[in-house]
Amino acid sequence: MTKILTKNEAASFLGSHDNYLILTHKRPDGDTLGSAAALTSALRRYGKTANMFFNKDITPKYLPFVQQFLASEDFDFSECTVISVDIADTGLFPAGAPDDVILAIDHHPSNSRFAQNLLLEDSRSACGEIVLDVINLLCGGVNKEEATLLYIALSTDTGCFVYANTDSHSFRTAGELYDAGAETAKVNRIFFRSMSKARLTLEGLVYSSLLSYAENRINIAVITKEMIEKSGATQNDMDDLASLPGKVEGNLVSAMIKENDQGFSKVSLRSNGAVNVSSICAMFGGGGHVMAAGCEMDMPPFQAAETLRKILEDSIKWTE
Amino acid sequence: MTKILTKNEAASFLGSHDNYLILTHKRPDGDTLGSAAALTSALRRYGKTANMFFNKDITPKYLPFVQQFLASEDFDFSECTVISVDIADTGLFPAGAPDDVILAIDHHPSNSRFAQNLLLEDSRSACGEIVLDVINLLCGGVNKEEATLLYIALSTDTGCFVYANTDSHSFRTAGELYDAGAETAKVNRIFFRSMSKARLTLEGLVYSSLLSYAENRINIAVITKEMIEKSGATQNDMDDLASLPGKVEGNLVSAMIKENDQGFSKVSLRSNGAVNVSSICAMFGGGGHVMAAGCEMDMPPFQAAETLRKILEDSIKWTE
Repeated sequence: MTKILTKNEAASFLGSHDNYLILTHKRPDGDTLGSAAALTSALRRYGKTANMFFNKDITPKYLPFVQQFLASEDFDFSECTVISVDIADTGLFPAGAPDDVILAIDHHPSNSRFAQNLLLEDSRSACGEIVLDVINLLCGGVNKEEATLLYIALSTDTGCFVYANTDSHSFRTAGELYDAGAETAKVNRIFFRSMSKARLTLEGLVYSSLLSYAENRINIAVITKEMIEKSGATQNDMDDLASLPGKVEGNLVSAMIKENDQGFSKVSLRSNGAVNVSSICAMFGGGGHVMAAGCEMDMPPFQAAETLRKILEDSIKWTE
Repeated sequence: MTKILTKNEAASFLGSHDNYLILTHKRPDGDTLGSAAALTSALRRYGKTANMFFNKDITPKYLPFVQQFLASEDFDFSECTVISVDIADTGLFPAGAPDDVILAIDHHPSNSRFAQNLLLEDSRSACGEIVLDVINLLCGGVNKEEATLLYIALSTDTGCFVYANTDSHSFRTAGELYDAGAETAKVNRIFFRSMSKARLTLEGLVYSSLLSYAENRINIAVITKEMIEKSGATQNDMDDLASLPGKVEGNLVSAMIKENDQGFSKVSLRSNGAVNVSSICAMFGGGGHVMAAGCEMDMPPFQAAETLRKILEDSIKWTE
């Protein structure tokens, strides 16, 4: 039975235990990493022993910011007080992580109540906003480094304040972190104003070969193995590709089709809500949500594009 | 002799005159248009007659937001109280505008004191932040529409809070505008999350053909007439192209070379500050600033690229 904590209760819990292990989620993003590193730093400042769980999937952009807070790969966490940040369910735990979480701090409405204690604020755009409040209660404020880490959490989870989850609290928190010394310009440069040459080349190949139909309301991108090879892209360059074709002005529904090793198609559909892409993906044994879903299609990518074109043209007829 | 006003003095000036014409600058951007339209709206709410000068260069993305505040093209402004917003100098006045400005509201440190009265806050990232304060003083608050217009001003002048001019005040102002009802998600979708198909195609052609040297510290983009034709881009799709090649991770100095009608090269150089691109452009009869400069080169674009490559390779030797 999970006990729901207030922020004050969570802060006092943290002040009265010790030997913390902070878990980040599988395929860690800026919110889970920034939140975990800032909390680890604050707990150490408060006089506690604290480490982040060694998550082997941390990408090179994040590593320099969090490295000093990471436990070693062979760290013995059997006696630790385990805290999770930004993790909605045990299925999102990284490989090898302990699952006896004493306190979960999260902002996902879908949090599955896996922890003994839970601090959940599901109206926050980033878990980092909640962690900031907890650190303020525990330590009376964040230091410059924690402010930068929490700015990473907030800015990456809002796409630098551009996603629809950005609200007044996100903006005001960013102001507070700026005043606390967050290196916002540096973070923005690294995460939002630059890309690896390979990623930029790959995006270029995608944008210049987009297939647009129905007066640009349907947009389909194809990424072939040849395009990946030509761009030099590696796994670290492949995040968030699904959103690219939807950038076309007037888009209602978009598809990203990536050729897999067998020459078949891995498909991600995105919709503005007018079309239910989950039901389209279900036709091919996939699934997801109304506005974002995925499936695999046992055909080469351009054949999949032509198949999807017809289905999507039918689907938008209902939106008119 | 220009008289410097405080915000209170500017608000009381606006309250005690009437029949306002609000000027926006040449090639109007979101800050000048959002500031002018919000101020026009607030003055009308206060009971004044107010119109924005008919600026014929307003692009289609902005027009729906400001149209109802625009004077007609043949508007007789001979008796108007002329206010300028976000205009640093008379050289930036739109064609046909009156130049007897009674009050200038601006955030440019370079403001040339052309107006009888000046409200200048040169530490603000957008003029819209100053206009918000003035409207708050004049009307006790902004309405939902003015909040959206000022959010357009602020978000476009900070690249949606990603440019280095973004500070605590920018974030807190965004929070205030959100709370006042600004349609932030709609503005973000239109200005930052979507692009015309032609622009996206053109960016794709640029990204997939970037010339990178010296371990990606030098990046040169070429836009030929053929690429423009292939993309279908028009003049409205050509803003801010100069910043594209500098997006490569590790970039120090970048060049955008655009083929002109004669088949020669229009060049924009950008630097992170380590290289003075103004002095490089001066070699070809151009000029500008240390971090942003331009010139024309009487040679075809790929020959210009090769010429610049050698000069830029020499220039970065001094940065090591």
